[in-house]
Amino acid sequence: MKIAIYPGSFDPITNGHLDIIERASVIFDKLIVSVAANAEKGSPLFTREERENMIKETVAHLPCVEVDSFSGLMVDHAIHHGAVAAIRGLRALSDFEFEFKMALMNRSLKEEISTLFLMPHAKYTHVSSSMVREAASLGGAVTEYVPAHVDSALKEKYSHG
Amino acid sequence: MKIAIYPGSFDPITNGHLDIIERASVIFDKLIVSVAANAEKGSPLFTREERENMIKETVAHLPCVEVDSFSGLMVDHAIHHGAVAAIRGLRALSDFEFEFKMALMNRSLKEEISTLFLMPHAKYTHVSSSMVREAASLGGAVTEYVPAHVDSALKEKYSHG
Amino acid sequence: MKIAIYPGSFDPITNGHLDIIERASVIFDKLIVSVAANAEKGSPLFTREERENMIKETVAHLPCVEVDSFSGLMVDHAIHHGAVAAIRGLRALSDFEFEFKMALMNRSLKEEISTLFLMPHAKYTHVSSSMVREAASLGGAVTEYVPAHVDSALKEKYSHG
Amino acid sequence: MKIAIYPGSFDPITNGHLDIIERASVIFDKLIVSVAANAEKGSPLFTREERENMIKETVAHLPCVEVDSFSGLMVDHAIHHGAVAAIRGLRALSDFEFEFKMALMNRSLKEEISTLFLMPHAKYTHVSSSMVREAASLGGAVTEYVPAHVDSALKEKYSHG
Amino acid sequence: MKIAIYPGSFDPITNGHLDIIERASVIFDKLIVSVAANAEKGSPLFTREERENMIKETVAHLPCVEVDSFSGLMVDHAIHHGAVAAIRGLRALSDFEFEFKMALMNRSLKEEISTLFLMPHAKYTHVSSSMVREAASLGGAVTEYVPAHVDSALKEKYSHG
Amino acid sequence: MKIAIYPGSFDPITNGHLDIIERASVIFDKLIVSVAANAEKGSPLFTREERENMIKETVAHLPCVEVDSFSGLMVDHAIHHGAVAAIRGLRALSDFEFEFKMALMNRSLKEEISTLFLMPHAKYTHVSSSMVREAASLGGAVTEYVPAHVDSALKEKYSHG
Repeated sequence: MKIAIYPGSFDPITNGHLDIIERASVIFDKLIVSVAANAEKGSPLFTREERENMIKETVAHLPCVEVDSFSGLMVDHAIHHGAVAAIRGLRALSDFEFEFKMALMNRSLKEEISTLFLMPHAKYTHVSSSMVREAASLGGAVTEYVPAHVDSALKEKYSHG
Repeated sequence: MKIAIYPGSFDPITNGHLDIIERASVIFDKLIVSVAANAEKGSPLFTREERENMIKETVAHLPCVEVDSFSGLMVDHAIHHGAVAAIRGLRALSDFEFEFKMALMNRSLKEEISTLFLMPHAKYTHVSSSMVREAASLGGAVTEYVPAHVDSALKEKYSHG
Repeated sequence: MKIAIYPGSFDPITNGHLDIIERASVIFDKLIVSVAANAEKGSPLFTREERENMIKETVAHLPCVEVDSFSGLMVDHAIHHGAVAAIRGLRALSDFEFEFKMALMNRSLKEEISTLFLMPHAKYTHVSSSMVREAASLGGAVTEYVPAHVDSALKEKYSHG
Repeated sequence: MKIAIYPGSFDPITNGHLDIIERASVIFDKLIVSVAANAEKGSPLFTREERENMIKETVAHLPCVEVDSFSGLMVDHAIHHGAVAAIRGLRALSDFEFEFKMALMNRSLKEEISTLFLMPHAKYTHVSSSMVREAASLGGAVTEYVPAHVDSALKEKYSHG
Repeated sequence: MKIAIYPGSFDPITNGHLDIIERASVIFDKLIVSVAANAEKGSPLFTREERENMIKETVAHLPCVEVDSFSGLMVDHAIHHGAVAAIRGLRALSDFEFEFKMALMNRSLKEEISTLFLMPHAKYTHVSSSMVREAASLGGAVTEYVPAHVDSALKEKYSHG
Repeated sequence: MKIAIYPGSFDPITNGHLDIIERASVIFDKLIVSVAANAEKGSPLFTREERENMIKETVAHLPCVEVDSFSGLMVDHAIHHGAVAAIRGLRALSDFEFEFKMALMNRSLKEEISTLFLMPHAKYTHVSSSMVREAASLGGAVTEYVPAHVDSALKEKYSHG
């Protein structure tokens, strides 16, 4: 059985992430979507639990997809799950640079995990969690870019902001 | 059984290609390395047959890897083999741009084929078939970058050049 | 009256070009789409006349758009038309580099012409005339990326190829 | 009458911004330079009022240019003014990436606003508000890159720093 | 006597930095490695003194290399030392963009200092101080990327973290 | 005595090249500007002799600069001259990618030669030999970008074209 891990912040999950998940779930027998819970990237909008729950609701139709979270090194978490590959989405150049360095670093930390990059559909090229948060915080409609329940969660967050 | 295709010019195969093949062969049950035989990219240094044979010799230790060639659309060839994914190596930015467009175009031509990108080992970041050809044609040693039998084939080609 | 020129090879015109034209035609009082007829870029697939005619058919619904062609410096042609700006589409990074240099060069050749960049819709990010030609030449369906009459012209060209 | 908006932080306005404003003011009948007053980007060096006033002094010779500020979505502010286009300066690759995503996001938020990119003169390619602030804070001379009154304002800020 | 300065944060020094230093020390008669002590980049992991001492221990085998630190403009510090050039390492695209702007800004601040870029060995392309800090903080082994005494210092820091 | 080589096509030399040469001649005791005479890049506009002579006339005021040409590997030519470094100009991103790969390849061919990159003045960022040739061939004025004698040579070439 071929297992892959898809690590990320998912703050919150977008339709671009979902597109990657659906594609990866065809390629692998089991896909684990893992929320990175390291504190160093500033305070997230959604808690680790909220993010995990939003992903679970989003992937409920995909039986081979599991959701969890991790702290520590991603590659250690991947090996713990018996994964042979880590999945990353590549949208644009700025992703590329960062991901390139991370993939090489991860490869040197644990040689047995390969990083695989997938590109989301062209219509999601410009969609990122941070853009979605910024647009939503300013009152913009992001219905097109996130699942309906995430849209509701964003409205809830910012109406109390 | 999960099948992937790894299409390319392989003119000639390098150790960077081999690194990608070895990694992909762990992830998939079967990997087909396919020489793109479209004439439009100028005249290759090695014929289609020479390129196929050099790949076969290079991957002889990998039982789940097959080698063939194709003309026409890569995605049609992938579907013909029952592949769920096409593998591409990403070395650097210039690869990224071109591959990004190709992946989106291929996805729109045949929705069912995903393009997966892998990065070769850092020591092969700067190695490409064209750099190897150029260095070899000027008398430079490329032993570090290609299998020994490819090194011999390059010397043969350029001594008759 | 504010006039702009949109120069390019248009070999052939794509839906990405049309998207740029429709947007620019809202911003300017008159837009001149100009086929660059310089011979130095290798032999085009379509003749200058075929390209002009395909554009004319494509923009027939836009009364403020004119179509012509030019040889020589684009900025001289722009000034001949009384244009204040040259329009260019920006799809991706590789465009950016080339266009950046061209815009600076053109600015230094004729200070009075500004280059304005527009981005086509996300769904056309990966669409270029050369990709369309390559896909069509290999039998791929490009219906989604070019006007219907251009699709027919491509099929005609490649069935006689 | 064709109206455009030029949104930005302008913290402070540089000669590169002025170059863009002068070029855009030839192309449009009215240009509104709008200070983005969203708080989320950390604390600016100059207040919203200081930034607006510095721009007003800088563009006093351009009768068709107005200056204001906005909070909320830029595209809503653009529509409020009846603008058909938003102007952005493109200096370099890093601009391109960010602007590309913003332009696509803005286009999807409000289809009727096009983003137009202009390049400043080559001599301003490397000039940004943040570089100017950093150089000025360390005692470097930035006379070449900002209007004289901005230079004075920077010296005033940092002598009290 | 040709003197060069190699400014940087060195928080901490990596084997990639050492590779640049060894190459630059062949080209120049004297090389001054200078820790930038400006406070604006957030709080460093190691103090200015710790960083200077780690560099001194790392370059002890290179007699023509001196180590110090500076605040204020790097170009002023370079001129104070009689340097004709500032050395910077270029690993990847993101470096390029930032360094490009800095080099142009520094050139305009002090015309007499040229910025020279060197590339580290391919095996260090993905190694940066921030990646090393992040990996070490999560318990990853970075022995391959930093001198042994830096590895110890990182372990010490994070065990008390 | 520290010697460097500055290899290139110089078809023809531009003011951007001259800017690099003047800066490098301050850093090194001797600088050898070397015309790459490999035939594989298509037919140059100017012959090897014309290119060498145009460089010689351009650098006549710089006593420590010599001019020659080479075929074969650049690094072999550098070692033949006793050079410790090869100089390359970096204008923009597209240069970076290509130069990055060449520098790594050259380093692996001959470990003892370091590649040093310099950036030309901002006003030459967009100036390349190919842009100059294209503008001149279309009748554009390139006086600002090349020495006067090169301008004359370009006019001569294209009036006979």
